[in-house]
Amino acid sequence: MMETFHVKTSAKTDFIDVTQSVQEAVRKSGVKEGICFIYIPHTTAAITINENADPTVPKDILMELNKIVPFQDRYQHLEGNSPAHIKASLIGPSLSVFVESGRLVLGTWQGIFVCEFDGPRSRQVYVRVLKGDF
Amino acid sequence: MMETFHVKTSAKTDFIDVTQSVQEAVRKSGVKEGICFIYIPHTTAAITINENADPTVPKDILMELNKIVPFQDRYQHLEGNSPAHIKASLIGPSLSVFVESGRLVLGTWQGIFVCEFDGPRSRQVYVRVLKGDF
Amino acid sequence: MMETFHVKTSAKTDFIDVTQSVQEAVRKSGVKEGICFIYIPHTTAAITINENADPTVPKDILMELNKIVPFQDRYQHLEGNSPAHIKASLIGPSLSVFVESGRLVLGTWQGIFVCEFDGPRSRQVYVRVLKGDF
Repeated sequence: MMETFHVKTSAKTDFIDVTQSVQEAVRKSGVKEGICFIYIPHTTAAITINENADPTVPKDILMELNKIVPFQDRYQHLEGNSPAHIKASLIGPSLSVFVESGRLVLGTWQGIFVCEFDGPRSRQVYVRVLKGDF
Repeated sequence: MMETFHVKTSAKTDFIDVTQSVQEAVRKSGVKEGICFIYIPHTTAAITINENADPTVPKDILMELNKIVPFQDRYQHLEGNSPAHIKASLIGPSLSVFVESGRLVLGTWQGIFVCEFDGPRSRQVYVRVLKGDF
Repeated sequence: MMETFHVKTSAKTDFIDVTQSVQEAVRKSGVKEGICFIYIPHTTAAITINENADPTVPKDILMELNKIVPFQDRYQHLEGNSPAHIKASLIGPSLSVFVESGRLVLGTWQGIFVCEFDGPRSRQVYVRVLKGDF
């Protein structure tokens, strides 16, 4: 079954740690061994995995992404959010994480983040777990 | 079963909307609930999801990617297509999209694109759907 | 079952071809038809697919990534490895590759690489194969 949860972002560009919400969706699925799929149905946001211990890491990632893809650059798209669309494709909308004993198998420093590139907004995240074979 | 379809690209760098072809592969699979995997077996092309409503969005993405990874930059690879290889790794070759009631669960503005970075060429796309558990 | 293998990287930034190790994990899984998931549990390394024929391709990718995300740029994170975290999110930690007749279905020029962005170090890679439906 597909689980959905919502995230409120609070700035133009923002990283929101959703590790606990994804883990809760894994628990609800009842699957003990398999693969967890995480998907964001938006074109100006993305999903990534990175360090969730020191908050300067997400800050540095956003600072640098906003330099790599400047907010102003003679974009043709009239809505003005082309940089957000570009960053969304660079980071990507889908991820898969291993599940063992009913829990996400993340590295010591890894957390799952929604990346907001055109906020603040409310965003949706889809989660589904497929069973492994034994 | 793995489905394969072909795409003709028409420029050096190009975005081709393949949403309908992927949906058709999902229909053929007969799977109603699960995850659809999309894969491109090339090293100078990629797969992404972004807005397929306004055609200036893909144009802006390509324009900016071509600035971020310049066509000339003292690359060592003698074939001259290193920028295409770099863009392929930045965007990525694989995606997973949720399937419900036999249809791709995409966001309102989302379409699936083949990204050509070394065209024009003919490209292959693989699609396979794995069943969800109930 | 989840398989794990280790990789030793030998430079600050490095590409290690792990195609054979992933293929060996697919063989051990016993799955003939399905999807192979590859995951790296680190926040300063990533997984990508690109050309493994000419060694100048990975060199050019690293050279350009190190320009796009400069080693020095007023980063706040005090460990000094913010560029590695940024590159990890640009390339990504997870990939899915099709499996047919017990073998990875890669394109002619495709190989699977661990991308080291904060080495040299020992890195872990997880592999799991889910069965397709017939």
